[in-house]
Amino acid sequence: MARNITPKETDYSQWYLDIIKVAELADYAPVRGCMVIRPTGYSLWESIQKHFDDAFKETGHVNAYFPVLIPNSFLEKEAEHVEGFSPECAVVTHAGGELLEEPLVVRPTSETVIGHMYSKWIQSWRDLPILINQWANVMRWEKRPRLFLRTSEFLWQEGHTAHATEEEAMEETLKMLEVYRRIMTEILAIPVIVGEKTAGERFPGAVNTYTCEAMMSDKKALQAGTSHFLGQNFSRAFDIQFQNQKGEQEYAWTTSWGVSTRLIGALIMTHSDNDGLILPPRVAPVQVAILPISTNDSVMEEQLLPRALEFSDKLDQMLGGRFTFVDKQFHMRPGDRFFYHLQKGVPLRLELGEKDLAAGTVRAVRRDTGSKEDIPFENVPLRVKALLEDIHKNLYTRALDFRIANTFSASTLEELKVIVEEKGGFVETYFAGTPEEEKKIREETGATPRCMPLNDTCTGTCFLTGKPHARKTIFAKAY
Amino acid sequence: MARNITPKETDYSQWYLDIIKVAELADYAPVRGCMVIRPTGYSLWESIQKHFDDAFKETGHVNAYFPVLIPNSFLEKEAEHVEGFSPECAVVTHAGGELLEEPLVVRPTSETVIGHMYSKWIQSWRDLPILINQWANVMRWEKRPRLFLRTSEFLWQEGHTAHATEEEAMEETLKMLEVYRRIMTEILAIPVIVGEKTAGERFPGAVNTYTCEAMMSDKKALQAGTSHFLGQNFSRAFDIQFQNQKGEQEYAWTTSWGVSTRLIGALIMTHSDNDGLILPPRVAPVQVAILPISTNDSVMEEQLLPRALEFSDKLDQMLGGRFTFVDKQFHMRPGDRFFYHLQKGVPLRLELGEKDLAAGTVRAVRRDTGSKEDIPFENVPLRVKALLEDIHKNLYTRALDFRIANTFSASTLEELKVIVEEKGGFVETYFAGTPEEEKKIREETGATPRCMPLNDTCTGTCFLTGKPHARKTIFAKAY
Repeated sequence: MARNITPKETDYSQWYLDIIKVAELADYAPVRGCMVIRPTGYSLWESIQKHFDDAFKETGHVNAYFPVLIPNSFLEKEAEHVEGFSPECAVVTHAGGELLEEPLVVRPTSETVIGHMYSKWIQSWRDLPILINQWANVMRWEKRPRLFLRTSEFLWQEGHTAHATEEEAMEETLKMLEVYRRIMTEILAIPVIVGEKTAGERFPGAVNTYTCEAMMSDKKALQAGTSHFLGQNFSRAFDIQFQNQKGEQEYAWTTSWGVSTRLIGALIMTHSDNDGLILPPRVAPVQVAILPISTNDSVMEEQLLPRALEFSDKLDQMLGGRFTFVDKQFHMRPGDRFFYHLQKGVPLRLELGEKDLAAGTVRAVRRDTGSKEDIPFENVPLRVKALLEDIHKNLYTRALDFRIANTFSASTLEELKVIVEEKGGFVETYFAGTPEEEKKIREETGATPRCMPLNDTCTGTCFLTGKPHARKTIFAKAY
Repeated sequence: MARNITPKETDYSQWYLDIIKVAELADYAPVRGCMVIRPTGYSLWESIQKHFDDAFKETGHVNAYFPVLIPNSFLEKEAEHVEGFSPECAVVTHAGGELLEEPLVVRPTSETVIGHMYSKWIQSWRDLPILINQWANVMRWEKRPRLFLRTSEFLWQEGHTAHATEEEAMEETLKMLEVYRRIMTEILAIPVIVGEKTAGERFPGAVNTYTCEAMMSDKKALQAGTSHFLGQNFSRAFDIQFQNQKGEQEYAWTTSWGVSTRLIGALIMTHSDNDGLILPPRVAPVQVAILPISTNDSVMEEQLLPRALEFSDKLDQMLGGRFTFVDKQFHMRPGDRFFYHLQKGVPLRLELGEKDLAAGTVRAVRRDTGSKEDIPFENVPLRVKALLEDIHKNLYTRALDFRIANTFSASTLEELKVIVEEKGGFVETYFAGTPEEEKKIREETGATPRCMPLNDTCTGTCFLTGKPHARKTIFAKAY
């Protein structure tokens, strides 16, 4: 049992990779930059998917599937889009033993091919809105890959909607941003700041990009999900026109929005510690591990195991699914069995030995705090429920407190630079610069504008240029 | 509302494509041979997925994800495998703006890359069995594409397991074949014959291939799912070794098994008619369409719609999910609204007009038989349940009777040829030929050996070669 995780204070990058290794979340694929998502990691992704997919369906969206290969010429129809994505594309040049007439790119995102299909499907205002989501693999060739955060292939969902009016498309863009915020905070226990991206950080081809930004435990920022208002850029490029109620031809207004397996990286770097992974209960595939412990086989068979299975059934019923795991790894020492679940981030561990049996209690151990308590048998379901709720709350609050404690403000470039270098964290400023000025700040400080928070309605003077009407903007080093 | 479906008697191929079009299941992608799975088709795929995924998990399997790109050299490690798949591969030669050192193929199937990972993960007998499934897109370049049946890209699941003994791997192979058979018959209402493939029809690299073969309504065969016993072929090619309990190094025994979006083609060609799609209730995303019908707005708002929503809630509760659809397409004429659900294959339609309201009944119309009955309000849930069960049974029995009526036997090549040409259908023979002889039969008759049914334990004399101990073998033209 490997317990040797590099402490995050020593080497944060290595700590992150060690967590992925001991929790068996992912492995390196033979193709450089690609990853294998191992069963433990994939069950976490399935849990994340279910929460988002349910929310998409509740808000009227349907799933569909578009092809993985896109003609290269499609990318070229939107100038910013091709500039942004072409350098990252993997290109199929041969197929079926022959050289293709036109190279095909493995989708880096699907606005273009979906735009092409929408132009065929949409004729009248009656065909709108179209509210489609896709769960798929995408590919963006990475020079500096990092498991879950930057891999050449990753899994994601991409929503693509088309609307009759600008207002409706903007409403959709913000509605999905709110769905993202809600699931990230209420399920993943990751506090996020919702905001608008500055011009230099927008999605290639978007009019506006909105984002959920989170602070990792090394104080760097991570973009956890984005929602784009695409205006009529893609409908002009792909001729998505419809006849409005007056009988006139109009271009549709479109949006796109996505979250990816990157969220697993966000979960690791928000909650985990030097002992291993810590998962928030509402997204953990296993919420409670139940460990009957005894070297006496007959006590195990006749008393401990039946009791453990009884708890498992009752808890699963309460939790509404198979969220418990009865540990039968009897060939392992008890300490190793504890550590197995601890490293994999299981929120709550219930230990049941002969002494517990005699006392009529079970020992509950929290993953987040390590605190222990003995729960009388009859109280198990209710007390476990309360503990799981408290673990969620504690993880969320801990992360939020951390972010608040590591958020500063700066009114000059010098201040920004000093804070980024000496403290790290988020730096609030008022900013009204251009993409070129964003670049300059990045070169001098290493920080980039993460977002302009939506809840801030004040304006101030730009810390860099002195221009009035600058919006509050958070700068930070980012993943 | 397009009602012009080519009758299947006139042109079966066109009928099939017309069904896909009117039911909005799929569309052609801009890349030749690829398809777009439209929301209605994708919701059907999600329903199919759920049934299989639940069954995989119940039998101890877990999901994972392996990369879509595979080094070309991996395919070459298994001689039969590379010969079988190389000609169909799409090849990535450039990525990130550079020529790759080694070309990468878009996975046609994942035995090779998964074998490579298993060799890293498996050391001891304690690591076995590994029971992993993957839901993914795969690519096999098609010269003669056909929506759902043969597309260059398709969606599927591929199970890949590794075991310590030959017996255990063979048991797994047959267990998954049985899972396939059960879901195809009990959920999709498609009668299938389970059998072993002849040598000429085996998966490239397999020791044995087992299959579920179904008869379509044009009497041609469709291979609906396969399960492969791979022996030690891939573990030798990829060095999947483990230390057994005696401390010796051994090669693992592996299996693989898969079903794909082809099943949607099988559903269409098993059940549908000249009016459109017919879906079996247990796999239909919408099992019951409820249509309140009136031109009187206040009657609609105050009486019909509330009653329709009440039925919807009660039925969803009974069915254990959102399986009803309350039709509010009031801008359409009632006839067009009926036809809308009829074409999309909804198993049962409930019509509720003012006269029905006065009589306290709702008009139920079956999609499979077209028969109608008036159900008193209080009986709706129970009667609908019984009707849905009967629809499943009827669709299954109808397909089974059709297959039985179109299954013949032949004892000479001449007989086989005459039956295939004049009648079509399945032809039972006793056969003990070689792959070369299979090829000869195909060239002379157009038929291929579909399988050697597992339930047949007799042996006879080979109809072609006169050899003894020949096994019963079904020949047919196939998709």
